[in-house]
Amino acid sequence: MSEAAANLADDLPAQYAAVRKQTELLCRPLAVDDYGVQPMADASPPKWHLAHTTWFFETFVLKPFADRYRVFDDSFGFLFNSYYDGVGDQYPRPMRGLLSRPTVDRVFDYRAHVDAAMDKHLDYDDETLRSRVVLGMNHEQQHQELLVTDIKYNLGTNPLRPTYDSKLHDAPGKERPATFVTFPGGLVEIGAAGAGFMFDNETPRHKVWLSEFALADRLVTCGEYLEFMRDGGYRTPSLWLSEGWTAARRHGWNAPLYWYRQDGEWFEYRLAGGGPIDTNLPVCHVSFFEADAFARWAGARLPTEAEWETAASSRAVTGNFSDGRRLHPGSSQGDGMTQLFGDTWEWTASAYGPYPGFRPLPGTLGEYNGKFMANQMVLRGGSCATPPGHVRPSYRNFFYAPDRWQFSGIRLARDVG
Amino acid sequence: MSEAAANLADDLPAQYAAVRKQTELLCRPLAVDDYGVQPMADASPPKWHLAHTTWFFETFVLKPFADRYRVFDDSFGFLFNSYYDGVGDQYPRPMRGLLSRPTVDRVFDYRAHVDAAMDKHLDYDDETLRSRVVLGMNHEQQHQELLVTDIKYNLGTNPLRPTYDSKLHDAPGKERPATFVTFPGGLVEIGAAGAGFMFDNETPRHKVWLSEFALADRLVTCGEYLEFMRDGGYRTPSLWLSEGWTAARRHGWNAPLYWYRQDGEWFEYRLAGGGPIDTNLPVCHVSFFEADAFARWAGARLPTEAEWETAASSRAVTGNFSDGRRLHPGSSQGDGMTQLFGDTWEWTASAYGPYPGFRPLPGTLGEYNGKFMANQMVLRGGSCATPPGHVRPSYRNFFYAPDRWQFSGIRLARDVG
Amino acid sequence: MSEAAANLADDLPAQYAAVRKQTELLCRPLAVDDYGVQPMADASPPKWHLAHTTWFFETFVLKPFADRYRVFDDSFGFLFNSYYDGVGDQYPRPMRGLLSRPTVDRVFDYRAHVDAAMDKHLDYDDETLRSRVVLGMNHEQQHQELLVTDIKYNLGTNPLRPTYDSKLHDAPGKERPATFVTFPGGLVEIGAAGAGFMFDNETPRHKVWLSEFALADRLVTCGEYLEFMRDGGYRTPSLWLSEGWTAARRHGWNAPLYWYRQDGEWFEYRLAGGGPIDTNLPVCHVSFFEADAFARWAGARLPTEAEWETAASSRAVTGNFSDGRRLHPGSSQGDGMTQLFGDTWEWTASAYGPYPGFRPLPGTLGEYNGKFMANQMVLRGGSCATPPGHVRPSYRNFFYAPDRWQFSGIRLARDVG
Amino acid sequence: MSEAAANLADDLPAQYAAVRKQTELLCRPLAVDDYGVQPMADASPPKWHLAHTTWFFETFVLKPFADRYRVFDDSFGFLFNSYYDGVGDQYPRPMRGLLSRPTVDRVFDYRAHVDAAMDKHLDYDDETLRSRVVLGMNHEQQHQELLVTDIKYNLGTNPLRPTYDSKLHDAPGKERPATFVTFPGGLVEIGAAGAGFMFDNETPRHKVWLSEFALADRLVTCGEYLEFMRDGGYRTPSLWLSEGWTAARRHGWNAPLYWYRQDGEWFEYRLAGGGPIDTNLPVCHVSFFEADAFARWAGARLPTEAEWETAASSRAVTGNFSDGRRLHPGSSQGDGMTQLFGDTWEWTASAYGPYPGFRPLPGTLGEYNGKFMANQMVLRGGSCATPPGHVRPSYRNFFYAPDRWQFSGIRLARDVG
Repeated sequence: MSEAAANLADDLPAQYAAVRKQTELLCRPLAVDDYGVQPMADASPPKWHLAHTTWFFETFVLKPFADRYRVFDDSFGFLFNSYYDGVGDQYPRPMRGLLSRPTVDRVFDYRAHVDAAMDKHLDYDDETLRSRVVLGMNHEQQHQELLVTDIKYNLGTNPLRPTYDSKLHDAPGKERPATFVTFPGGLVEIGAAGAGFMFDNETPRHKVWLSEFALADRLVTCGEYLEFMRDGGYRTPSLWLSEGWTAARRHGWNAPLYWYRQDGEWFEYRLAGGGPIDTNLPVCHVSFFEADAFARWAGARLPTEAEWETAASSRAVTGNFSDGRRLHPGSSQGDGMTQLFGDTWEWTASAYGPYPGFRPLPGTLGEYNGKFMANQMVLRGGSCATPPGHVRPSYRNFFYAPDRWQFSGIRLARDVG
Repeated sequence: MSEAAANLADDLPAQYAAVRKQTELLCRPLAVDDYGVQPMADASPPKWHLAHTTWFFETFVLKPFADRYRVFDDSFGFLFNSYYDGVGDQYPRPMRGLLSRPTVDRVFDYRAHVDAAMDKHLDYDDETLRSRVVLGMNHEQQHQELLVTDIKYNLGTNPLRPTYDSKLHDAPGKERPATFVTFPGGLVEIGAAGAGFMFDNETPRHKVWLSEFALADRLVTCGEYLEFMRDGGYRTPSLWLSEGWTAARRHGWNAPLYWYRQDGEWFEYRLAGGGPIDTNLPVCHVSFFEADAFARWAGARLPTEAEWETAASSRAVTGNFSDGRRLHPGSSQGDGMTQLFGDTWEWTASAYGPYPGFRPLPGTLGEYNGKFMANQMVLRGGSCATPPGHVRPSYRNFFYAPDRWQFSGIRLARDVG
Repeated sequence: MSEAAANLADDLPAQYAAVRKQTELLCRPLAVDDYGVQPMADASPPKWHLAHTTWFFETFVLKPFADRYRVFDDSFGFLFNSYYDGVGDQYPRPMRGLLSRPTVDRVFDYRAHVDAAMDKHLDYDDETLRSRVVLGMNHEQQHQELLVTDIKYNLGTNPLRPTYDSKLHDAPGKERPATFVTFPGGLVEIGAAGAGFMFDNETPRHKVWLSEFALADRLVTCGEYLEFMRDGGYRTPSLWLSEGWTAARRHGWNAPLYWYRQDGEWFEYRLAGGGPIDTNLPVCHVSFFEADAFARWAGARLPTEAEWETAASSRAVTGNFSDGRRLHPGSSQGDGMTQLFGDTWEWTASAYGPYPGFRPLPGTLGEYNGKFMANQMVLRGGSCATPPGHVRPSYRNFFYAPDRWQFSGIRLARDVG
Repeated sequence: MSEAAANLADDLPAQYAAVRKQTELLCRPLAVDDYGVQPMADASPPKWHLAHTTWFFETFVLKPFADRYRVFDDSFGFLFNSYYDGVGDQYPRPMRGLLSRPTVDRVFDYRAHVDAAMDKHLDYDDETLRSRVVLGMNHEQQHQELLVTDIKYNLGTNPLRPTYDSKLHDAPGKERPATFVTFPGGLVEIGAAGAGFMFDNETPRHKVWLSEFALADRLVTCGEYLEFMRDGGYRTPSLWLSEGWTAARRHGWNAPLYWYRQDGEWFEYRLAGGGPIDTNLPVCHVSFFEADAFARWAGARLPTEAEWETAASSRAVTGNFSDGRRLHPGSSQGDGMTQLFGDTWEWTASAYGPYPGFRPLPGTLGEYNGKFMANQMVLRGGSCATPPGHVRPSYRNFFYAPDRWQFSGIRLARDVG
């Protein structure tokens, strides 16, 4: 067992309980009505997240490791399997919002049933079991972020723009010029170093050659993005990738997701409700295509994932973690690279693919990351919606180039010399 | 005021209250989870039905007739207007299932607010107001049937096939051969005769020439429909209209909606839950295309709406009304024409269009029926889900030829001589 | 044999040859490039029309009646069967424009092969054969109109707007006010009377009750339609059927098909090329939805098919036939009802369905008309593109309500009393 | 000017003429009917290729460099601009097959007009002009391959499967076991080295770190692919990327494009016509998804583009060039790496993106390659349809992961140690 895994496992059942409880805390502000809706095919209803994370423990921990475990409901295997072909067919993803049954109450019963069994029926000395539990906890943490993301999308596209939690309003951002920090490049190593939990897609650690490069020491702000908009950014095809231009016109993009005009001014829906743009906060909810176009407009480019990881690993990183309670892009700063974690995910220029020598987890769990290694872009860092402790320099998030509902922002990069 | 309208209006507030209460009673078996889902674009969430019927009274009665009325929520005009262009834009129909807000609780508050205002702020001596209230009540009764229809679609297409109300199971059907009853035809009159409430599309009463014709004295049964299926009905293009054949293949139809195979036998989902087919009950949930193909297979045809209305008007009709509590095709019989009302709506061979001399209601309410007079087929009678008292021989229901989620069945007709 | 059929059959082979030659004459102005394109799924390439009409004779005349006939190419049965399920599968209609093979040359060879066989191998004394040949000739005449219609659509939507035949320019229209002619109604008979060729869908002749009605004595002009446009006709939902309004917005309709703006004026593409609108010519290439909206705007309505046929049958009809050479809405006038035939097809208010007692032709040929009796609207009369001699008062043409590429126009009707 | 460019430019007008003539030679086997069809949105009609390549010279050479040049037809700028936003709007790509005009004859006139002007009006001493002409020639060579590819798709999906050129039949393949050749890796350089013509996307040459790797010395054969099929390759989700599995099911893939079953055996359509599979020839017309799944099934993987280029650059490559006349995967072999060029394009594991430090060409020509750097995969090598002389180790071809109509095949790679 790795060192970090060992730390986690010192009191694995307690940590399991804490993760599980956190998921439910995130749902507290919801009305029962909010649990079932699926405002687009990419998002899932909160109820589904609650059940699917539970199904994960039932399927990959309880069934194989707890002889006395009794499955809660035979139909749930079909309903709450996301995409694991190795354990059976799946209810179609775009139809998750049509499932008024099982009810929210029954899904909470399901959680309680599985939690009780995790407590009673397992031998936590088994190394494989422990690693499965840790994987399930990390899996649930990923879904905690998706939960918040999907809730925001549901509420934020509702004509009433209802508040999720009014206590989540941001502190005002502070104006600060961006500085480009130079890194020497050369033959570097990236990938998980072997200490602590890691997903299979972060391995193996391997060598990469980098030319000298520079990264901005903070994220692009709403104010900078407004300049891009006012300079005709959304109307200038030469700034865009071909598919990006097509996507922008098809969807009518003219601002980040959740921005709206009121009396001639730009406002933004946040989890605390709508309000005027804060020009000093990082811009959020832009697609890769918009990030890429912005960078081109700014005479810069997006970082590669190797550059990003090298920068995040090799420098004292100051003030990077938001407190994890304000579920919105916060503002943090320092002397060196800032806002690497806890504000927005950062689009990179790197397509998501296997590292050299990549081996997925054996068996069905190998479907977790590996089978998505085509047509998606890597994001690095972590957002205000990412559970604290779930981020690290080698972490690889990935979404499609047109996706905007994630907490995704922009850091600029430049060639040097 | 017409006589029947006068009857209704004797105690219009009480009747209003009864209709409103009945809508809410139909929702009693629902979980909060069930109120918001929209399993297909044609269906609406129960919450939406509850709010829209309320909006109808707010918009067409309270706003124009009650000076002191305060609108409950300004945004509801946009959210719960179905299709009345004359009073403003509408939230897109296929997205009704995405509205987790307003919540069910708030929608019930809306109903209470409007109901209180209907009680307090109106002068029921105003003739125009009274006719608007009666129209609103009939409108709400139509939505009571749609509510049941849409609930059945939601639950019936859920993989768990949950029960809506277990008390609604049907009495077993009784075997009885169908007889064709002959009608002499000639110059007849159809259309609303002027007594009692009527929709504008039932007027004006007008002459139609009919050749001698015959109608079956009962509906086609599940057993007869099974014969059609076993004889290859769904695999024989010569039985089908061209568009019907295309629809059947595109959607993979091989049985009525809600039928499913289990261990080699056919079962049917009903509001009381799934169970084996009762071969003596009327077949239900077939499209016009299936009804038409069945009739061709049987060497018969569907009745025209003029034939149907003539038959329903000119004969002693025995045992036609189900008791209104069993929300499923019942079985009723007698000596003459039976099952005309209260079992299933009956597809006719008539396209829905204006009667000669038709004039829609003036103003926005003229959009109620008139603007749909293209590309739909007329259904006559009334189903087990139709509120008792809401049916009459001149009533014209209309749906698209491929629609199957209504309680729609088949009565055969034949030319004579 | 009916009298008219007998007339035709006096020299059936010669008449066959004349019809076949006429089809080819219509193709003379085409480049080889024009024969293969299919600018939308509803249209077919000229090459396909040439081959399909030939396949019709091969399939329904030569194969059953000419023992010694050798099929030209086995694959053509699949490629050129339009929709007759009774004789086998069909190449998908929307893909007809993808068939670069067989070439135009080979399709003309096919025609020659079949024409030679029709000349050599048949015994024209056989009554059934004669009626099949006559049906095939009428079938080919229908395709002559479709050929012109589809060629116009191809050329008229090409950015270069090429000329089909510059000799086809219209004589200028003459201004003339429209008059409404009153018809007494009562119990009338419509349907083919039994003399001359008729399609099965025109039978049986049957009684219909009509209230007194009035029809305009000429078609709606481009000038009148321009008034509708300038009065906001395309922006006023209350004028439209619900589906019409949706179609108009989805397709961006703001004028008839082939109209275009140039330097602030309206122009129209015609087979002779583009030119300014002639306000006195009948408006053409409007959908049923536009015809219906125009009529509502004009305080009138569309005629039913029974009204139209009654008017066309019961009156001296003056100047109704265009000379058949100008393939464009001409202008003809007289004292009574004018422009009934030879200018534009006229949308009626009647959905296309079976007449009471309708029996389709036996066998596969019963698919000719009967299986389309749903969701289409009847058009009456005949256009400048209809072969002379192919029109009669009982003729029922039918297209979908949104279709605009046919030569379809508007005649107004009114209730009387 | 680079050395190779200089070689080319020694007699640039003659080389221009040769390239232009070769395009037309490729069209010789076509009927006029074949020039206009567009069997899918990704393909273009031959007529369009002929005109677009001509438009390229007119737009980027004649207009800016030949004062006296008179544009052939003003409308062609709109019709034959593929995707250069910098020079104006474009006719929609999926509608190219609807353009029956301009005719083939007129397009050849266009070619002659431009060719004459290229001969008369230019000063070939101008360095910029020379490089534009060379770019245009390379552009036209790319379209020569697309021309063949699109012709094959048109003829190969026609139910008649017509022959393009019967002289193009392949010599039988020879059975030969594949050997994996090991490469040491380390810090290598890839990208165009500076001699000869290169596209901007091949630059700048840059360092990449490679672990030791092995590549198969020949392409995967049809016989090996048949084993994959017979082993259930198309039915085993664990072999596929998630999007690949979805694509395979949506499109019903169960064999490479152009394979078909006849009497229980697999046949393949080739440009010389259909025939039985030759199990010793390289498999062709597979998507990236199929190539990736095959490699996983074989216990191998696809090469990265850096590995491929390193192997192709660092070894004596024997027998790699087919003679360029047989427009079909040939078979060539030797002692080392074989079939690198002239048989099939080889899917790599690398997403198409910018090289570190990449700068697109200035101005509108920068749209040539750069704006497609998202969501596509790199292919390396060159196929039997690639013009001889148009291939080199640094050449980067790119297509979408599901594309199959290119001449695309598979080479396996493996990690070492």
